Amino acid sequence: MLELLNEEKVFKDPVHRYVHVKYKLIWDLIGTKEFQRLRRIRQLGTTYLTFHGAEHSRFSHSLGVYEIVRRIVDLFEGRKEWDDKNRMLSLCAALLHDVGHGPFSHSFEKVFDLDHEDFTREIILGETEVNQVLRQVDQDFPRQVADVIAKTHDNKLVVSLISSQIDADRMDYLLRDAYFTGVSYGQFDIERILRVMRPTEDQVVIKASGMHAVEDYIMSRYQMYWQVYFHPVTRSAEVILSKVLHRAKHLYKKGYKFKLKPVHFYSLFMENVSLADYLRLDESVAMYYFQLWQDEEDTILRDLCRRFMNRQLFKYIEFNPMVQLKDWRRLSDLFEEAGIDPNYYLEVDSSSDLPYDFYRPGEEEERLPIHLLMPNGELRELSRESDVVEAISGKKRTDHKLYFPADMINDLSSHRKAKEKIKEILHLK
Amino acid sequence: MLELLNEEKVFKDPVHRYVHVKYKLIWDLIGTKEFQRLRRIRQLGTTYLTFHGAEHSRFSHSLGVYEIVRRIVDLFEGRKEWDDKNRMLSLCAALLHDVGHGPFSHSFEKVFDLDHEDFTREIILGETEVNQVLRQVDQDFPRQVADVIAKTHDNKLVVSLISSQIDADRMDYLLRDAYFTGVSYGQFDIERILRVMRPTEDQVVIKASGMHAVEDYIMSRYQMYWQVYFHPVTRSAEVILSKVLHRAKHLYKKGYKFKLKPVHFYSLFMENVSLADYLRLDESVAMYYFQLWQDEEDTILRDLCRRFMNRQLFKYIEFNPMVQLKDWRRLSDLFEEAGIDPNYYLEVDSSSDLPYDFYRPGEEEERLPIHLLMPNGELRELSRESDVVEAISGKKRTDHKLYFPADMINDLSSHRKAKEKIKEILHLK
Amino acid sequence: MLELLNEEKVFKDPVHRYVHVKYKLIWDLIGTKEFQRLRRIRQLGTTYLTFHGAEHSRFSHSLGVYEIVRRIVDLFEGRKEWDDKNRMLSLCAALLHDVGHGPFSHSFEKVFDLDHEDFTREIILGETEVNQVLRQVDQDFPRQVADVIAKTHDNKLVVSLISSQIDADRMDYLLRDAYFTGVSYGQFDIERILRVMRPTEDQVVIKASGMHAVEDYIMSRYQMYWQVYFHPVTRSAEVILSKVLHRAKHLYKKGYKFKLKPVHFYSLFMENVSLADYLRLDESVAMYYFQLWQDEEDTILRDLCRRFMNRQLFKYIEFNPMVQLKDWRRLSDLFEEAGIDPNYYLEVDSSSDLPYDFYRPGEEEERLPIHLLMPNGELRELSRESDVVEAISGKKRTDHKLYFPADMINDLSSHRKAKEKIKEILHLK
Amino acid sequence: MLELLNEEKVFKDPVHRYVHVKYKLIWDLIGTKEFQRLRRIRQLGTTYLTFHGAEHSRFSHSLGVYEIVRRIVDLFEGRKEWDDKNRMLSLCAALLHDVGHGPFSHSFEKVFDLDHEDFTREIILGETEVNQVLRQVDQDFPRQVADVIAKTHDNKLVVSLISSQIDADRMDYLLRDAYFTGVSYGQFDIERILRVMRPTEDQVVIKASGMHAVEDYIMSRYQMYWQVYFHPVTRSAEVILSKVLHRAKHLYKKGYKFKLKPVHFYSLFMENVSLADYLRLDESVAMYYFQLWQDEEDTILRDLCRRFMNRQLFKYIEFNPMVQLKDWRRLSDLFEEAGIDPNYYLEVDSSSDLPYDFYRPGEEEERLPIHLLMPNGELRELSRESDVVEAISGKKRTDHKLYFPADMINDLSSHRKAKEKIKEILHLK
Repeated sequence: MLELLNEEKVFKDPVHRYVHVKYKLIWDLIGTKEFQRLRRIRQLGTTYLTFHGAEHSRFSHSLGVYEIVRRIVDLFEGRKEWDDKNRMLSLCAALLHDVGHGPFSHSFEKVFDLDHEDFTREIILGETEVNQVLRQVDQDFPRQVADVIAKTHDNKLVVSLISSQIDADRMDYLLRDAYFTGVSYGQFDIERILRVMRPTEDQVVIKASGMHAVEDYIMSRYQMYWQVYFHPVTRSAEVILSKVLHRAKHLYKKGYKFKLKPVHFYSLFMENVSLADYLRLDESVAMYYFQLWQDEEDTILRDLCRRFMNRQLFKYIEFNPMVQLKDWRRLSDLFEEAGIDPNYYLEVDSSSDLPYDFYRPGEEEERLPIHLLMPNGELRELSRESDVVEAISGKKRTDHKLYFPADMINDLSSHRKAKEKIKEILHLK
Repeated sequence: MLELLNEEKVFKDPVHRYVHVKYKLIWDLIGTKEFQRLRRIRQLGTTYLTFHGAEHSRFSHSLGVYEIVRRIVDLFEGRKEWDDKNRMLSLCAALLHDVGHGPFSHSFEKVFDLDHEDFTREIILGETEVNQVLRQVDQDFPRQVADVIAKTHDNKLVVSLISSQIDADRMDYLLRDAYFTGVSYGQFDIERILRVMRPTEDQVVIKASGMHAVEDYIMSRYQMYWQVYFHPVTRSAEVILSKVLHRAKHLYKKGYKFKLKPVHFYSLFMENVSLADYLRLDESVAMYYFQLWQDEEDTILRDLCRRFMNRQLFKYIEFNPMVQLKDWRRLSDLFEEAGIDPNYYLEVDSSSDLPYDFYRPGEEEERLPIHLLMPNGELRELSRESDVVEAISGKKRTDHKLYFPADMINDLSSHRKAKEKIKEILHLK
Repeated sequence: MLELLNEEKVFKDPVHRYVHVKYKLIWDLIGTKEFQRLRRIRQLGTTYLTFHGAEHSRFSHSLGVYEIVRRIVDLFEGRKEWDDKNRMLSLCAALLHDVGHGPFSHSFEKVFDLDHEDFTREIILGETEVNQVLRQVDQDFPRQVADVIAKTHDNKLVVSLISSQIDADRMDYLLRDAYFTGVSYGQFDIERILRVMRPTEDQVVIKASGMHAVEDYIMSRYQMYWQVYFHPVTRSAEVILSKVLHRAKHLYKKGYKFKLKPVHFYSLFMENVSLADYLRLDESVAMYYFQLWQDEEDTILRDLCRRFMNRQLFKYIEFNPMVQLKDWRRLSDLFEEAGIDPNYYLEVDSSSDLPYDFYRPGEEEERLPIHLLMPNGELRELSRESDVVEAISGKKRTDHKLYFPADMINDLSSHRKAKEKIKEILHLK
Repeated sequence: MLELLNEEKVFKDPVHRYVHVKYKLIWDLIGTKEFQRLRRIRQLGTTYLTFHGAEHSRFSHSLGVYEIVRRIVDLFEGRKEWDDKNRMLSLCAALLHDVGHGPFSHSFEKVFDLDHEDFTREIILGETEVNQVLRQVDQDFPRQVADVIAKTHDNKLVVSLISSQIDADRMDYLLRDAYFTGVSYGQFDIERILRVMRPTEDQVVIKASGMHAVEDYIMSRYQMYWQVYFHPVTRSAEVILSKVLHRAKHLYKKGYKFKLKPVHFYSLFMENVSLADYLRLDESVAMYYFQLWQDEEDTILRDLCRRFMNRQLFKYIEFNPMVQLKDWRRLSDLFEEAGIDPNYYLEVDSSSDLPYDFYRPGEEEERLPIHLLMPNGELRELSRESDVVEAISGKKRTDHKLYFPADMINDLSSHRKAKEKIKEILHLK
């Protein structure tokens, strides 16, 4: 299982300096076409339209998560809980945890009701190069890797390396996204955090002396969410992208004749996507169609695609749909009146984040809280020790924005009255 | 001409921290669809297959060159040589100097006999959004910008900001490519270099006290060429890419029936590319076709595309075609014998670089040498003052590699004798 | 007043890259012997015994504060509130704000009842080279500079650059101390903060869009306090240093005969320090005496000096003097019993910090709160807008530690019983 | 010998992030008073007067060299050549290689004819805490450590870790001095270099694939020498410092009565320094005397000390003593005539460097050349493979400067004629 390469291979990585690979199994996984496909899927979706440096792919993030787990596992070497198989299991799960992502996951999943986690599972268990490589360990190994990623594996310690409030996934993406966007907020002292990690039976805990390093990590996370991940310009691009997909699906369903048949999208439109179909989809393919559709007959599809390709995004204002329901209805009517379809040109987008949570029973994305290992051997949940973390834990903050095409509204010439009213509600000058 | 935005805009940039835009003209140029298209063209072509961080686009590089020129021009403010028009000319030329690049320029230009400089000129002078924006200054302004980029403009000082041995273009790409690949070689003290730049009538010169900073820049350049730009693995991907394009063109010309008509490539295959055709081409479109072609009937096209998409590259050995001509012929014959078409599977690639040159009369890419401004007001050419630069100037170093599909050779089963001979010549075990 | 140097001078600075000086007045101030003296006083006192990189001096910090103010003032250029005199006033106050610091200020001020702010004022107003340089502007200028530093100047805006919750002093020391210690906590995006600063009549405020950058700065401050400034090992060295000074003073007062007369300390011991005496004191002089005193007759002075010079520090435990008063008395008695003088070998040290405070009326070190400038022109106090800041504002956290010489206790041979009891109370094994 | 600490200790280090100590022996060595004394000796002597950040001590450099050797030795773990004893020998030699340095070594050694290497040997072999700790290994161990540092030990591989053209000493000081001065020139990819190091019987060699990383290191070294180590302002301070020491010695020898007896200097003046005397000397002590001497009767000593303390340095011009011998004599006479003692106020300082040398037989500081390990197992000397290194190898470049007190010359009032002639020769305006 732990067959070594003749010579350790390294990848130059701007975040971790080097990614080290010494096992043949890992090298072979990286070489599979399903894993190479991640090069064609951006890590941060439409964020590159806000932060131009954010053009990095899920490929580099996946290598990064692997590298962090590799370093943790090396630090654990020699501990009895930690045999060869668990090490390889951790490394493979780290490398493959995102292998099922498709293009612009956020929008595609929402519009076409997909879940990348299902595809991750299928890629690991189905008839793929990845599965073939994993089976070299043993017949059951692919299932184990899939279970770790699905958080259902018995070995909770291994699961916690990949999925917890302070797992390798989050640590890599914060550092990496900060590096490529160029913001300074995502920095924290990962070397220190790795040094204070201690394995227990069912999770990794943190030596109490490392509490401040963990606080710093939590704050980085908080900042990255509000500064980068939920940036309103990025969400504007997301809104447009979703509208493109909705429109194309709608047109297809009502029998519209596309200039070039969008064969790659057929099974998406029918909500019946096979693994093979899915694997053919990447962001090049998506962008290819968006480019073509800039010249479609349908004015809505054409306009939305042009906006997306050329970054002519929607503007936004603060807007609370609960409070401002009447405004919303009024705007919708006025848009109709002015000949702008509100289904495609008026959208409320809400983002919310729980920067740290110690207990969210029943929530879908429940992650293990962080425990500190006190000098006396006791475990304490982080927010009970840290003022800063306590201050932000469990506090869900939500940001609502209303998106609309300011240029289109300003260009309205025939519906002067509706135009004036719209501009008034939207505070347009 | 110098109409200001209501409020200065900034782009967060990982290399220069922030890119500042205060002129409406610059903001509008960035918003044109021809400029936005640069987001879909990688700065370093196939390098991402060697350095996974190198996924950045020509869009970010173009902003970076603009930002460097902006800083230089700010430092020159108040000098009599330097009026508003020259400043705007410099900024526009900086921003647009690469606007004509197409997908994987290196391979596409070679195979289809294109020159991105022609398209840069066409984009600036033709019926484009870029041209429309530039004409807001005056009717002649687009031509002036094009002339600066083409190095034919009368104002040699402005030209030298964009094209010399130490221009904004080179400074940005060295820093940026180093940042995204993660190598440390490309670092130099740009802040110091900007501080010691002095404008003269026909070029920017460097105060003698800044000589060591410039030496460091020259050495960075030297290192980046050999460590990154000419990396043999990157060149392997280039070789395969060129072969894909050659094969597709060859098939098209002999009437092969593609599963999906490669309409985007028609004018390329016919070597008759209009600006409109060219602008529709980007790396998403190219990658879309390469993905499709993985399932083509033609075994050569199919194999090459799979190699490119899944990073199953050719191996290489040192090989000097001048000296080893006989080996080359022999190999070619043996490949034919074994049923491997040497036109597509055997290629010598040569890279060479002049790290610094003070005088290359008649050379196509002739760039101005660097002059030092001595305390007594005299100008001296850099390599006459610097031992290190003298040591490497004018020394063209060439690296030849022979590329071939080691896996295919190892899998040969029916041509055992040819196989053995091939492996012997290529030192394959 | 604003006489320029022939050529701008620069200092290479690891934190701000370059410190730029173009005014002759600033250059002359830096050259005064009172300012050069700051090279011989460490920025972080005894911290170098915990973080070995923290050997930087108040000289470099003072240049750094000047440089930040210079950049702010440049950004304000052209605003009507901001004339030449206010600019020069801000620059001089920034440069000189710490000029009155003496060696190991914290301990010396406490033991000898000094206040560096008094000496700052005296240096600026008294018969010094600094005063002579400042008077070149006009006779009243020194007083104005002193008033800005004392926060009593009428121009509240200028005062706020040097003394507020987000002033140049704090910004420089957080970045600088983080750089030299090597911890990552002190990082924040100063360039962004400078860009969102807006001058108002009586303070600098922050554009609301920059709120997250300010949050990040506040968190950096919080982390630096607990990770670096209040580090228990640093405080152990402070405790020993204070005891050295106390002992020397005590010996002097009771007529002890030092091997070499500690003439530099006489006026300190008598609590009657002239400016001339004070200026002769620096950390070289202090260290010289501590070294000599390692060989004094008095065993306590000798022992404490050896501990300080050779970093044989006191150990510590958590200890709350309010709660554990009885333990404290008991320990003190046991120390006496065992022949260890508790006045020199048993000490509780308490550190506490208010990471951010919006209103502390009547407090000695009251600093202006941070105001955000909302899009509608309104000002809002930071903690009303930021959850994170609200969470930590006004919360004073205190950390108490009890320091003692563990080695000395372990070496006790003749007082076995006292030893055992002491070890029990101190949890020594 | 390899007794472990209960828990690994770490030092936060800005250059290597963390310095790791797991052996009790190393921890004890760091705690000795001879090693702690290195905190009071700056790594770069008078350089802090040019680069204000360069206030770091030999203590931090020594830890850094230890850390690099620790990493190399860890990479070599498991190789047969490399037993426990050799590892400990390497670590101790790394830590202690500079332990014999005194204050401002360069000047003190020259003026008082000392050699820090003799003191290093004495500290390791004499009656010191260091010796006591080392003898815990065995009686002969101190001698072995001393031999490694003296390059006379049989194990050439161990010697080469500490003293070769690419040893841990040089690697640390280039990185560290670059970090603290803030210049960017000293950066190179140490992680890569460590990865390509291979131990052979008598030295560490470099895998050929790492050649460019080594080139980059050599160029860093070259740049640091000319940009930092030989900076003319630093040398001006060195010149003054040497003159101070000469003058004090001269005065002492002729029976001058100092206000305070310079007891710490007596044995230096007599050139008969015991180890105990030497260990009492550090930069605090030296600075203490220089400060006192600012108020001495002797005008030369007083003036020179004031210059040194307050950074009123000598100016300089390019001056080649071989060529300009006549000017030199003339100046010397004119100085005499004007009443300025040329023995103290006129000095030529020459710096020269061999950036890389493959063979310097008979030279005092002969260091092993760098060998590349070619893929075929052959060793080749670096400059035979690298153009850049070849270009600079063996080329000794020398820089001569003439130092003089420009202010004093300008202030001459009674010797107008001599003054004019002096100014003419020195190009003073």
